[in-house]
Amino acid sequence: MLGTMLYGPGDVRSQDVPEPKILLPTDAIIRLSATCICGSDLWPFRGLNDVSAPMAMGHEYCGIVVEVGSAVTSVKPGQFVVGSFCLSDNTCPHCKFGFQSSCEQREFMTGAQAAFARVPLADGTLIATAEIPPDDLIPSLLAASDVLGTGWYAADAARVQPGSTVVVVGDGAVGLMGVLAAKQMGAGRIIAMSRHKSRQDLALEYGATDIISERGDAGVARIRELTRNIGADAVLECVGTQESMKQAINVARPGSMIGYVGVPHGVELDGQALFFSQTGMMGGPAPVRRFLPHLMDLILKREINPGKVFDLSLPLADAAEGYRAMDERRAIKTLLLT
Amino acid sequence: MLGTMLYGPGDVRSQDVPEPKILLPTDAIIRLSATCICGSDLWPFRGLNDVSAPMAMGHEYCGIVVEVGSAVTSVKPGQFVVGSFCLSDNTCPHCKFGFQSSCEQREFMTGAQAAFARVPLADGTLIATAEIPPDDLIPSLLAASDVLGTGWYAADAARVQPGSTVVVVGDGAVGLMGVLAAKQMGAGRIIAMSRHKSRQDLALEYGATDIISERGDAGVARIRELTRNIGADAVLECVGTQESMKQAINVARPGSMIGYVGVPHGVELDGQALFFSQTGMMGGPAPVRRFLPHLMDLILKREINPGKVFDLSLPLADAAEGYRAMDERRAIKTLLLT
Repeated sequence: MLGTMLYGPGDVRSQDVPEPKILLPTDAIIRLSATCICGSDLWPFRGLNDVSAPMAMGHEYCGIVVEVGSAVTSVKPGQFVVGSFCLSDNTCPHCKFGFQSSCEQREFMTGAQAAFARVPLADGTLIATAEIPPDDLIPSLLAASDVLGTGWYAADAARVQPGSTVVVVGDGAVGLMGVLAAKQMGAGRIIAMSRHKSRQDLALEYGATDIISERGDAGVARIRELTRNIGADAVLECVGTQESMKQAINVARPGSMIGYVGVPHGVELDGQALFFSQTGMMGGPAPVRRFLPHLMDLILKREINPGKVFDLSLPLADAAEGYRAMDERRAIKTLLLT
Repeated sequence: MLGTMLYGPGDVRSQDVPEPKILLPTDAIIRLSATCICGSDLWPFRGLNDVSAPMAMGHEYCGIVVEVGSAVTSVKPGQFVVGSFCLSDNTCPHCKFGFQSSCEQREFMTGAQAAFARVPLADGTLIATAEIPPDDLIPSLLAASDVLGTGWYAADAARVQPGSTVVVVGDGAVGLMGVLAAKQMGAGRIIAMSRHKSRQDLALEYGATDIISERGDAGVARIRELTRNIGADAVLECVGTQESMKQAINVARPGSMIGYVGVPHGVELDGQALFFSQTGMMGGPAPVRRFLPHLMDLILKREINPGKVFDLSLPLADAAEGYRAMDERRAIKTLLLT
């Protein structure tokens, strides 16, 4: 079957790979309805994460179950399922607390930029829909697997409340999903930091009330001005660089929370500066499984349309072009048609 | 009058200083019923904070109002008052959000290790009791000014809930107050890290259910064992060193919060490690003013006895010995009799 392998910085190849097989009784095999490229896939693509061996890319997925292991009881062949990029048993103490992304058995999904994929811990990870959803909802359901769930977690971790003034740092797909999440949670004002017209437009469509195109100190100054020098009640940090984290801290009011979901790369926090800023922090890989039933419900009822974040669709065989388009910011997020 | 000045590391002197005067219409002058030495006073005493000029020491206070500025309306001469070590107007947006320690007009109290003290922003800072309290409650009311309020904030920031498993890192006065606060908030299990018999005893009296005398990796291993390798629901970091912060992070379960109130000295946090630990952080100088009415009420009803944290009482003239006793850990906290 066709799969996507990363061999090194800038070197993504669509190639023939072995079809996945059930390896453990808790596995399921799914036929992907669609798959996609994640902003976090760009870290190794850009050489910012080490790639020691060829990597089977792809961790966002939804599709039809084709086979399950002998221990799987909650899903069966023929059902349409969505799962989180973090695989979890959903029974351990961390899962029970709603932090399935720190499950005692946690694994990260791989190899989903392909026609078929193996999903370990299927019972704790996958959620089936009552019926096969219409095709036009596939992009949104796929988004729920990671970017939507991650943006939602950022808003949840930042404790967005009805009426909150929210700042979203980062206009990638996750940041845009953070705007959508903040809107759903009733935020009164949503300030999106974005310099790109297409992303600004989508942020506005998802509920942003203000767009700040300035960055760095100028961006901070604009937000301080907009918030009468108080700062934001909640900040969603959706990038993961030292600069973006600094911006987040500098626009957060004392007593607020920063929900940070961009995997930090080279981020160092000075304890004393953080202490006196009096901003709270909560982050980590998103426990998408916690939010997935609610998010799937919102999508199936057509109350949200996260699938609009895909502004480029390519055949799976053209995955490399999808990576380049995102790397060069020609695309927000690339859907790969299986 | 007698006051306490720090001239440099290890050099504290009780000496004659000018009596404080009303400088602004929002000031009050109080005659201290008692005063005390704070663990944070040891940072400059130990040379870990710079002391560029002689410092008037003391930021914890309670006593009788003797004079008020022309703008002061909420307290009057003759009343007994307690105030926070952080002076606040209690009207700015940060104060309204309950973070008076980040008040737009914030000042830090100084010069309270003396017979009289000037309290700026009196209306926003001081709370008067209905009657002059009995003498035996003075130590507890004095503790409310900082250490009790700070330990309480640590528990609040760590979001201690009924039934929570709580770890308290640090067995100084603030850590012991953190134990008391966690108990009041209904924690189910309170694990205090302490190696000193007198502090262990007081921790147990205040509600600790487990005492861990091991430190570092051994301490972390013991707590992981006690919590069936899950970690704590809430961690109170009451020291402020790299080592204590590392311990806090390593015993916190994913999704928990660390309330950190020890002023960080040399603490650096690795963003990626914090991200994958999935522990939340909230800290800063305690907004004692938020908690003060409730804490004073608990003390006046004799429901809590934070004053027991004072295990050494000395005349104000012997302040230097009080510093040495705390520095050498011969005393938990020194009360100075005015």
